[in-house]
Amino acid sequence: MSALFERVALIGLGLIGSSIAHAVRRGGLAHEIVGYARSPETRKTAARLGFLDRVTDTAADAVEGADLVILCIPVGVIGAVTEQIAPSLAPGAILSDVGSVKSSVIAQALPHMPDYAELIPAHPIAGTEQSGPESGFAELFDNRWCILTPLPTNKPESVAKLRRFWEGLGSQVDTMDAAHHDQVLAVTSHIPHLIAYSIVGTASDLETVTESEVVKYSASGFRDFTRIAASDPTMWRDVFLHNKEATLEVLGRVTEDLFALQRAIRWGDGDALFERFSETRAIRRGIVEAGQDTASPNFGRGKPPTE
Amino acid sequence: MSALFERVALIGLGLIGSSIAHAVRRGGLAHEIVGYARSPETRKTAARLGFLDRVTDTAADAVEGADLVILCIPVGVIGAVTEQIAPSLAPGAILSDVGSVKSSVIAQALPHMPDYAELIPAHPIAGTEQSGPESGFAELFDNRWCILTPLPTNKPESVAKLRRFWEGLGSQVDTMDAAHHDQVLAVTSHIPHLIAYSIVGTASDLETVTESEVVKYSASGFRDFTRIAASDPTMWRDVFLHNKEATLEVLGRVTEDLFALQRAIRWGDGDALFERFSETRAIRRGIVEAGQDTASPNFGRGKPPTE
Repeated sequence: MSALFERVALIGLGLIGSSIAHAVRRGGLAHEIVGYARSPETRKTAARLGFLDRVTDTAADAVEGADLVILCIPVGVIGAVTEQIAPSLAPGAILSDVGSVKSSVIAQALPHMPDYAELIPAHPIAGTEQSGPESGFAELFDNRWCILTPLPTNKPESVAKLRRFWEGLGSQVDTMDAAHHDQVLAVTSHIPHLIAYSIVGTASDLETVTESEVVKYSASGFRDFTRIAASDPTMWRDVFLHNKEATLEVLGRVTEDLFALQRAIRWGDGDALFERFSETRAIRRGIVEAGQDTASPNFGRGKPPTE
Repeated sequence: MSALFERVALIGLGLIGSSIAHAVRRGGLAHEIVGYARSPETRKTAARLGFLDRVTDTAADAVEGADLVILCIPVGVIGAVTEQIAPSLAPGAILSDVGSVKSSVIAQALPHMPDYAELIPAHPIAGTEQSGPESGFAELFDNRWCILTPLPTNKPESVAKLRRFWEGLGSQVDTMDAAHHDQVLAVTSHIPHLIAYSIVGTASDLETVTESEVVKYSASGFRDFTRIAASDPTMWRDVFLHNKEATLEVLGRVTEDLFALQRAIRWGDGDALFERFSETRAIRRGIVEAGQDTASPNFGRGKPPTE
């Protein structure tokens, strides 16, 4: 594939930013990849790892002359950073992002946009529980979905170009409106993370069971929750602050359902429990068939080392 | 290792029963492994797979002459099955089990025990989301914990022998009293399963988000919950019916904590969210260091960082 963009600028060089850089290079999607991170430490690490052609000392320097700029930063600082870089955006540039919330990104960024550049929000549904410039890798987006939430004012050819870019990173691409995106992600991502954080936190707070017992016997289910509860706290704080309505709505559903199960346990209603527990295998099967998880038992953690 | 037991009888040939058979053979822990399952289909599959020396047509036939009998059946039928096999237990035989709940197993089984045999309850903390005789494998218990909850009346040498047996299957062995076991497992296993069932069920019940969207975008967190929500419904119904007090207690804590988080979201209390989300990484690290989970991102599902 010939390069889609002359210069891609990445603002923020954590797991997602660094993975985009690796994948842009793998796909030959840009002639130059430049990047900036707020922390000097991160910039130094990025320079050492060499996944960028150039690390800049300011966000404005990175943005200058780039035809694609991607904000790979927590949702809570989208407004401030857009305000800061907007004057440096090149005519015709596309400004995009990778935030887990889309309505708020639009509300924060759009007021700062010059009329000669376009905001096209995006959200790659991919990640690991790790953070930082050393955790990125080129295959992160392969066979994962990326959701674009274009604005009515976007040029179709700009949206098509960003779509081809994400396809070049290995993703399948969907488009939907921002409000619907935020509802979907509340279900598939935000509330699962909140619950994982909650149960892992609760488990380490009990008087009758020690933390060392929780750790030892975690293979019985608990350990599955600890992976996503090890995700970046700043990123997740911002998600909940910026997707309040949808997450509260889904959380209300979940607690309602938990109360129904609690009642079934209290009254010994085995049929209700059995029915609930029987409905859920199909959705697991669907996820495996859609290539969104492994079919191997225990996520393919595999047979533990024998000796 | 020379054979610890003359004849091991397995009642129930699902994931755990069949895995014990494979591991007994691997370790040379018994001269003969016999087994029985209620379903003729399961018995036929077990015979075809050949992980037993002998498949019997009744539970009593399997138990006869065995010096170790292990019930690998749902907790809800422990009483009935013990009553049925008790008259066939050999003098000096150990009757054990693999149930996820221990106080109830003792309450159900003990009244039926003849005074010339011993009940020593056990619980291997190991499993996958799969079920049935074809899902078993010899390595399932390697480096996992097995908890024994001996009775005050057990002979120390019998407990020591059962401990060596589980070590021979690959496990590390702990002992504790049954009531404490049930509290620990409520935290590490039962409530995580209940919550996983609940959130997976809730997600497929929403009006605004389709099930196909949930499946497509599940890599953003949701898919982690679907694995344990694909576990055997009968087994899990019985767990909650037979560990009512401890599961209700822990569930009460979790919902209380969820309400606190809900309140923090509603009031935009970012500090409270950040603090909660920062406490949970250490426990993940502890689990990885204890060898109870993989350190690879995404449970090692995906490609790890290349360099």
